[in-house]
Amino acid sequence: MYQKTLDLYYNKVEQALPNFLPSADLPQNEVIHAMKYSLCGGGKRVRAVLLLAFYELFSKESNITHALPFAAAIEMIHAYSLIHDDLPCMDDDDLRRGKPSCHIEYGESTALLAGDGLLTLAFEAISRPENLEHFSAEQIVNAVHTYAFAAGTEGMIGGQILDLENEEKKASEDELKQADKLKTGALFKAAITVGGILGNATKEQLTAIGEFADKIGLVFQIADDILDATSTQEKLGKPIGSDKENEKTTYVTIYGVDKAGQIADGLTSDAVEILNSLNLDTSFIEKYTKELTKRDY
Amino acid sequence: MYQKTLDLYYNKVEQALPNFLPSADLPQNEVIHAMKYSLCGGGKRVRAVLLLAFYELFSKESNITHALPFAAAIEMIHAYSLIHDDLPCMDDDDLRRGKPSCHIEYGESTALLAGDGLLTLAFEAISRPENLEHFSAEQIVNAVHTYAFAAGTEGMIGGQILDLENEEKKASEDELKQADKLKTGALFKAAITVGGILGNATKEQLTAIGEFADKIGLVFQIADDILDATSTQEKLGKPIGSDKENEKTTYVTIYGVDKAGQIADGLTSDAVEILNSLNLDTSFIEKYTKELTKRDY
Repeated sequence: MYQKTLDLYYNKVEQALPNFLPSADLPQNEVIHAMKYSLCGGGKRVRAVLLLAFYELFSKESNITHALPFAAAIEMIHAYSLIHDDLPCMDDDDLRRGKPSCHIEYGESTALLAGDGLLTLAFEAISRPENLEHFSAEQIVNAVHTYAFAAGTEGMIGGQILDLENEEKKASEDELKQADKLKTGALFKAAITVGGILGNATKEQLTAIGEFADKIGLVFQIADDILDATSTQEKLGKPIGSDKENEKTTYVTIYGVDKAGQIADGLTSDAVEILNSLNLDTSFIEKYTKELTKRDY
Repeated sequence: MYQKTLDLYYNKVEQALPNFLPSADLPQNEVIHAMKYSLCGGGKRVRAVLLLAFYELFSKESNITHALPFAAAIEMIHAYSLIHDDLPCMDDDDLRRGKPSCHIEYGESTALLAGDGLLTLAFEAISRPENLEHFSAEQIVNAVHTYAFAAGTEGMIGGQILDLENEEKKASEDELKQADKLKTGALFKAAITVGGILGNATKEQLTAIGEFADKIGLVFQIADDILDATSTQEKLGKPIGSDKENEKTTYVTIYGVDKAGQIADGLTSDAVEILNSLNLDTSFIEKYTKELTKRDY
């Protein structure tokens, strides 16, 4: 049952994504190819899956096809952020998911515009007139605002700036937490919240799932830090935690792998408790969350 | 009367713009300063003025304060496009309106994020809950879609791509027209259309002002090309139209200054005719359009 639901969500999203892109027959097709390369180039679609799961959790007459534009939009915002993050003036990464990053494949100006194009397309996709057949205009305005706030300077972009700053100094735990919360957590929370909005969750329910999202966003980041630290150290053939120089401050550098793992476990328990308090069938979400934040070490 | 109305629109927009920015007290203040530098650094606010003028033209109970988030948003989208256009991988311009361009003043990564931030803020500003006190959710969804479509790959971004391509070859008149229509025209048309949407214009009226916008966008571009050609040639002390090498294809390079001017005049007459067909008091818009597209040569 769990795997079947997960496959359904994942496959629906994968099938839908290319359909939101404009036709590559347009003269400006180079940028559209670059958008497709980055948007449809793999990934677990965590944000989209969470959105669909929370939509179905609350909605009495859910039809996930109707929610796909909103699920696609959060993946577009995520893809845009990766393209711009990889640019030479930012992290200068040549590889993304084992393939050349967008600017390596298409050149810098096309990659810049492809990122801009995906961010813009996210808002275009969710405001299309046909969405008004399935959701109220109020729900759509609320979704636009949730995404725009989460992606902006008080959300994801703010996190990118803090992240750049933290790389230049030994960041404190608070600074680290704040950067992670904004950079990764903001889009997670937006996806979950928009799922709730589309499913007509009450204000109290939206508050509860927002708190769930804050905790899970942090767990996800810690799991990532641990994976990063363990795989890097293994690759270098060094004992884990021994590379103290030139390293970015993360949960692992502050607490070590074991304590960081314990913190993540504590946050996961708190998050599950919030889920249970909803008195709904949250079994899929609970299992998905645990799988996502599992640490194989 | 004309000047008083124009001053009112302009001043309202200028006063409002900084208030839409997030507080620079946030830790990520560098990018907010950069956003302010580019958004509040001058300009005629043509798009915002047109939006307010068309809103007042159609609305029976217009209050321009209510429309300011939408006027500010189109200026944010315009400002973002200039920041990204000036980046080294695009036009590589060090100056913008006689001052250092955003990336020269703040560095490339901050400028990139400031552009991203302004595009995102545009959608955040128009979807704020308080806007629902003055406009219906349907009007707001319609405005979001109009802006997102106009700013996207089938609008402004598409025009930027075509523009980059046209620089590398001798573009035909059709290619040139298409690039200009998208690059400059799309945001003009979006501003005018959203003014109409907020003023509750009918479908027929929206179609008419869309056609008006298409013509005026082109006139504006031609006037710009002429100004560019005449000032460059004067600066170089050469007769106008004599610099045939290494020049970008524009209306002036295809037709020469005089014929290009005649084309612009013809388009302006057509546009004024459309305005007159509305049977409303379009005197401000008519005068403003003529001032905007006046060629002082």
